[in-house]
Amino acid sequence: MSQFTAQDHHYMTLAINLAANGMYTTTPNPNVGCVLVNNGEIVGQGYHKKAGEGHAEVNALAEAQDKAQGAVAYVTLEPCSHTGRTGPCAVALVEAGVSKVIAAMVDPNPAVSGKGLAILNQAGIETAFGLMQTQAEALNRGFLKRMRTGMPFIQCKLAASLDGKTALKNGDSKWITGPQARAQVQDYRSKSCAILTGADTILVDNAKMNVRYAELLEPPFPAEQLRQPIRVVVDSKHRLKPDLAFFQINSPIIILTTDLENNHHWPHYVQHLVVKELNGFVDLTDACQQLGKLGVNQLWLEAGHTLAGKFAELALVDEFIFYLAPKLIGASGQSLLQLPVLESMDQVYDLAIDEVSLIDSDLKIVASPKRV
Amino acid sequence: MSQFTAQDHHYMTLAINLAANGMYTTTPNPNVGCVLVNNGEIVGQGYHKKAGEGHAEVNALAEAQDKAQGAVAYVTLEPCSHTGRTGPCAVALVEAGVSKVIAAMVDPNPAVSGKGLAILNQAGIETAFGLMQTQAEALNRGFLKRMRTGMPFIQCKLAASLDGKTALKNGDSKWITGPQARAQVQDYRSKSCAILTGADTILVDNAKMNVRYAELLEPPFPAEQLRQPIRVVVDSKHRLKPDLAFFQINSPIIILTTDLENNHHWPHYVQHLVVKELNGFVDLTDACQQLGKLGVNQLWLEAGHTLAGKFAELALVDEFIFYLAPKLIGASGQSLLQLPVLESMDQVYDLAIDEVSLIDSDLKIVASPKRV
Repeated sequence: MSQFTAQDHHYMTLAINLAANGMYTTTPNPNVGCVLVNNGEIVGQGYHKKAGEGHAEVNALAEAQDKAQGAVAYVTLEPCSHTGRTGPCAVALVEAGVSKVIAAMVDPNPAVSGKGLAILNQAGIETAFGLMQTQAEALNRGFLKRMRTGMPFIQCKLAASLDGKTALKNGDSKWITGPQARAQVQDYRSKSCAILTGADTILVDNAKMNVRYAELLEPPFPAEQLRQPIRVVVDSKHRLKPDLAFFQINSPIIILTTDLENNHHWPHYVQHLVVKELNGFVDLTDACQQLGKLGVNQLWLEAGHTLAGKFAELALVDEFIFYLAPKLIGASGQSLLQLPVLESMDQVYDLAIDEVSLIDSDLKIVASPKRV
Repeated sequence: MSQFTAQDHHYMTLAINLAANGMYTTTPNPNVGCVLVNNGEIVGQGYHKKAGEGHAEVNALAEAQDKAQGAVAYVTLEPCSHTGRTGPCAVALVEAGVSKVIAAMVDPNPAVSGKGLAILNQAGIETAFGLMQTQAEALNRGFLKRMRTGMPFIQCKLAASLDGKTALKNGDSKWITGPQARAQVQDYRSKSCAILTGADTILVDNAKMNVRYAELLEPPFPAEQLRQPIRVVVDSKHRLKPDLAFFQINSPIIILTTDLENNHHWPHYVQHLVVKELNGFVDLTDACQQLGKLGVNQLWLEAGHTLAGKFAELALVDEFIFYLAPKLIGASGQSLLQLPVLESMDQVYDLAIDEVSLIDSDLKIVASPKRV
């Protein structure tokens, strides 16, 4: 937009880069960055790191101190208007005496959208928004979707051979993809609010589904700062027991079930979440809505062909991430997704390819459901 | 190599580009280009267009006439030393009085390799070879493999959804990939010496497996110059009959069979080729060797999962060309390749990805068997 200068773009780029520092930790809050510029000098920079800690604006104002007076504030998201664990950022900006606030985007929550900017305007501070909105939205796909729809942004990871097989006939799948692709999966897990899988994966593979720090490629934080995402498992038939490896790791777990009938003694970090039933199984749409209510912005789905297929069939997946290894397994191998049998080609589930890259010798394909 | 100058590379690039003009037509001959340069001036250019017509050197000499005297000849392949349908090119170059011959590569046929250069040397003409050899080899992958091993260069085309399914459960596969990918397949067919498929494809899809000129993207020749590749079909069990659409197109067809026992009246352009039997079916290795003897350089394999799987299993495939459409079909769909059931992941058929590109909305992946 012509209302913004090259300098504005420069500072907003800085703010977006700052915001990205929070991507492993801010859940359930959004990633936000703020840069304060006074007479061409950067006087304060801040980003939101963790729920319960300072917001980006507050952190930047703390750095700027007196120099915030008269400064232009570049923020990647509209300053908040509510008093949560911290006071409203819009008020803090007013009190600090900034002259202008440029926000990349307004708040995605329809209930509060525009209120922060209104507080600023009422205090006589000039405001503008929409600068680099696309890039700012990319910081918070999960948060934005949850604010707009109540549902998490759901990424479905699928790993297979080039001929679309996830495992041999006998179930052996270690390893289809190479170490770099697997490290990238660890990184995706660590950026997610929650990782969702099915009871089969836990039972058959004895999978833990946690983030393994040692496998991350260049983690931008020390091991002790690793946040384990909530691990969520669908267990419609009460097949899980506390002695499985999955339950030995002390970090939040949610078991999705249709009723609470079960006699096991579960660790304190295991929560049962009762969701609606659909055809004798957990209603996945209701499950996702409930996870949204619990603050899950970004949900990483890593499941077998039945559960992954069900998510696809219900149009719950926002993004498919395929890792295709340069191998051939043949028709006897296990298929990627269980989907309803189709009668004609015009019924197929259409995707659009968003990104293709080589991860070492594996092919990565990011695709999203085609909007019609 | 330091013996060659930037000018040498320039002229050889021209010769290689000239050679490529023959790629739809030279079969069973190689693609060859020639540029004659006299005192910094290009005095003659030629390429081989079609078996029975002039070789590249002869065509370039014809253009240069007297100016060939003292010129440097850049040729993409060692000038031939034998008298075939035309005289030996090495002798023609001697007679024209060229001063030097630079060849991108020596003849790949071990029986004649170096003989052309020897004729030139004996006549006192300076020779050099190896300039842009990699690029020159890429012009003639089929011819080179056949000369070196007796076997055609075999490309296996596979089209599927992103989850590796070639068709719905009911067999419907029209169309998985988009028009651009299908046009590219037509182009691959038209550059091949032969197209190989199985009786199933002919019977079930009533496929013609010819090149459809109207579907080619920007064909570099008029419709009447279209060469139909030899169409080859594996029919181990004598299931094919002359009334199928495949046999209605008047262009060479080879039926691969293990014996000649059949009572049908076939069109004159249909040849039965008896090959060895293996487990009751056509021995595909023997079949490919026989096709090599018939001059098939480049074989385009476009078959169902059984036959394509057999070619892969027998390690006959030099290059897999996958077209993956951004669609999901699900586990009930038909798989890409029938391969023997594997017991452990270290037995999987390893490929290396050579090329990845987007063809409109479809993903194209070129991969070759991993050399160990």
